[in-house]
Amino acid sequence: MNTPQTLKGFRDFLPQQALQRKWLISKIVEIFGKFGFDPLETPGLEYEEILMGKYGEEADKLLYRFSDRGKRKVALRYDQTVPTARVVAMYPELPKPFKRYQLQTVWRAEKPQKGRYREFLQCDADIIGPVSPISDAEIITLVYFVMKNIGFSKFLILVNDRTLFGNTPIEAIRIIDKLAKIGKEEVKRQLSQKGFSQKLIDEIEQNKPTENLQKILDYCENLGVDKNFLKFDPTLARGLDYYTSTIFEVTIDGFESGSVCGGGRYDKLIGLFSKSDVPAVGFAFGFDRLLDAAFQLNLTPKQFTNSKVLVTIFSDDLIDLSLKITGDLRNAGIAAEIYPDNKKLDKQLKYADKKKIPWVVIVGPDEAKLGTAVLKNLLKKQQYTFLQDKIITALKND
Amino acid sequence: MNTPQTLKGFRDFLPQQALQRKWLISKIVEIFGKFGFDPLETPGLEYEEILMGKYGEEADKLLYRFSDRGKRKVALRYDQTVPTARVVAMYPELPKPFKRYQLQTVWRAEKPQKGRYREFLQCDADIIGPVSPISDAEIITLVYFVMKNIGFSKFLILVNDRTLFGNTPIEAIRIIDKLAKIGKEEVKRQLSQKGFSQKLIDEIEQNKPTENLQKILDYCENLGVDKNFLKFDPTLARGLDYYTSTIFEVTIDGFESGSVCGGGRYDKLIGLFSKSDVPAVGFAFGFDRLLDAAFQLNLTPKQFTNSKVLVTIFSDDLIDLSLKITGDLRNAGIAAEIYPDNKKLDKQLKYADKKKIPWVVIVGPDEAKLGTAVLKNLLKKQQYTFLQDKIITALKND
Repeated sequence: MNTPQTLKGFRDFLPQQALQRKWLISKIVEIFGKFGFDPLETPGLEYEEILMGKYGEEADKLLYRFSDRGKRKVALRYDQTVPTARVVAMYPELPKPFKRYQLQTVWRAEKPQKGRYREFLQCDADIIGPVSPISDAEIITLVYFVMKNIGFSKFLILVNDRTLFGNTPIEAIRIIDKLAKIGKEEVKRQLSQKGFSQKLIDEIEQNKPTENLQKILDYCENLGVDKNFLKFDPTLARGLDYYTSTIFEVTIDGFESGSVCGGGRYDKLIGLFSKSDVPAVGFAFGFDRLLDAAFQLNLTPKQFTNSKVLVTIFSDDLIDLSLKITGDLRNAGIAAEIYPDNKKLDKQLKYADKKKIPWVVIVGPDEAKLGTAVLKNLLKKQQYTFLQDKIITALKND
Repeated sequence: MNTPQTLKGFRDFLPQQALQRKWLISKIVEIFGKFGFDPLETPGLEYEEILMGKYGEEADKLLYRFSDRGKRKVALRYDQTVPTARVVAMYPELPKPFKRYQLQTVWRAEKPQKGRYREFLQCDADIIGPVSPISDAEIITLVYFVMKNIGFSKFLILVNDRTLFGNTPIEAIRIIDKLAKIGKEEVKRQLSQKGFSQKLIDEIEQNKPTENLQKILDYCENLGVDKNFLKFDPTLARGLDYYTSTIFEVTIDGFESGSVCGGGRYDKLIGLFSKSDVPAVGFAFGFDRLLDAAFQLNLTPKQFTNSKVLVTIFSDDLIDLSLKITGDLRNAGIAAEIYPDNKKLDKQLKYADKKKIPWVVIVGPDEAKLGTAVLKNLLKKQQYTFLQDKIITALKND
């Protein structure tokens, strides 16, 4: 291979991107933990039989499938819900309700396009077991506090109950679901084009929350959700067939690329491998989209590297001193790196500049004699001279 | 599929295990960051051509390879070094020296056996670019501080320089490498069996550190490594052919399953996809083994769940009060869960017990009237009655 390359739809995450992803993950997982959700991990490869036929025909085509060396038919993880259904059946000893979150890569042989990848991080949390509206409320409240923790201040959790659609055919629901995107006139046109009554949309807009949904909304408030962030939306439908009652979606003001989170109650899916139905309610964040939104709204950290300071090496005879200073900085909890090569100071400063390390320490022969060090801020283009043991204080106060 | 199951050599990590893994990762990554190493992520699937032939014939057999829907020959990530070599060639704009760490799953079609899995987490850190012994010292120091941060107090970093073996054939080196495991007599027997002089082992035991290795050891001390943890071992060889000079291994006192970390300098590998050699020094932790060691030595956290407290629901008319208490606890930074279902108190307490949540809050009608709550410690089998707004203080002080 002459040109090193990645497969289409697959991505490398270089340090700055990877740091931003880690930041977002930590913001999400912090709240998951605070709500008593625990992590679950499942394998990247499963028996094809476990995954096939669970997502519908369309999705089966998107599975990465192959035969392994032992001629077993295997497939790459496509989502985290079916593996969780397997886990629930395999480990009956798991405490129920089972509150788990999962953040793992999934693979889909999709046509790559803007915002669609063949490999992406999926980020789910679910409560498995109860049918009580308390669990729906917990899940919606969890989403609310994650959004707050990331730093979003203007977003809306749109909520509906699928049972309100009654016997309305799924094709009609799918058209109604597009209301926000295509407008009412177009919804009406498409409805009648498919042989449905145009009045359907008017009727559905008149819906009021079910008693169950009203309870959920009230519980959310009791759990600390500001009601200005919650909105009953009778036209919200969500594409997936498997939702059985509560559904919700999160949109962010000023972010036009669509909802960043979707979820609801799906009481028929987790029981796939079990002897009876296993009720469940949960959601998935669209991780890439959520990160895009956080970036656009200036919430992501500005750091390009973990390093706060680069300790340079002035000359061979001063290596030991620079090494000691580096060790001391780290002992004091400061993320410090030593320039790990014998190069001219100029080159070392360029490295710090390119990697956007904010501070640089320089100890030349004069400083060594005096027990001082030069502390340089590369971003602000300022420099100070300190006694060596005062560098720590100076950097800690920054 | 009648019995839900995972593929052999693949593992589910249920909450407690997953929490312990996350704990270990955080201990490692904390120090990586403090040393100015930044994360890198590469895809799970690559062009087969990128990965094949890079690890030797033996390893090629262990690659998971297949043709995707577009008839592209692809393979699952086998390690993180070859993908890093690709990254280095693809993004010349990356600041050099390139200090990156990578913690991702790799897949190998190995025969599953005790401690050998087909899917496992690999955990590498490397400095790419310099040949200077400063970079070798940084890497060894990094390993030392990670071990300390995990909590290991008795371990040894065995260090050697491969160039000390001179022209000794690789087969002889491989025999000598087994000294600690099989003893000197057996090494001699195997050496002569393969037609080598038995004196080879005696000669090699007489070796002294090279000038370069001595520098590295001194630099490590200056960077803060306690020299009692560093040992020159002239018989250490490490299996892999690709090391070019410095090699090291970490063993833990009282942990008999072998070394938990191995690394060294490999100046010929990262340049695979580049026009010239790219020097590099780094290491990989054996993550599973490291976790085993931490567990055996009682270093892993005892928690079974993220939850610190379960707020129970006494009866339907008291739901709102329990929800409010839960919200307040979370606002105060306490990991609290509400029992998300309408069940008898007894069942709720059993859940907390099974999930090993340390505390439970109970608010019955009497408590509701008095504005109090019962706080129960399930592990210590003690219970206290507090005014509701004092629960937070009580739990914070625990």
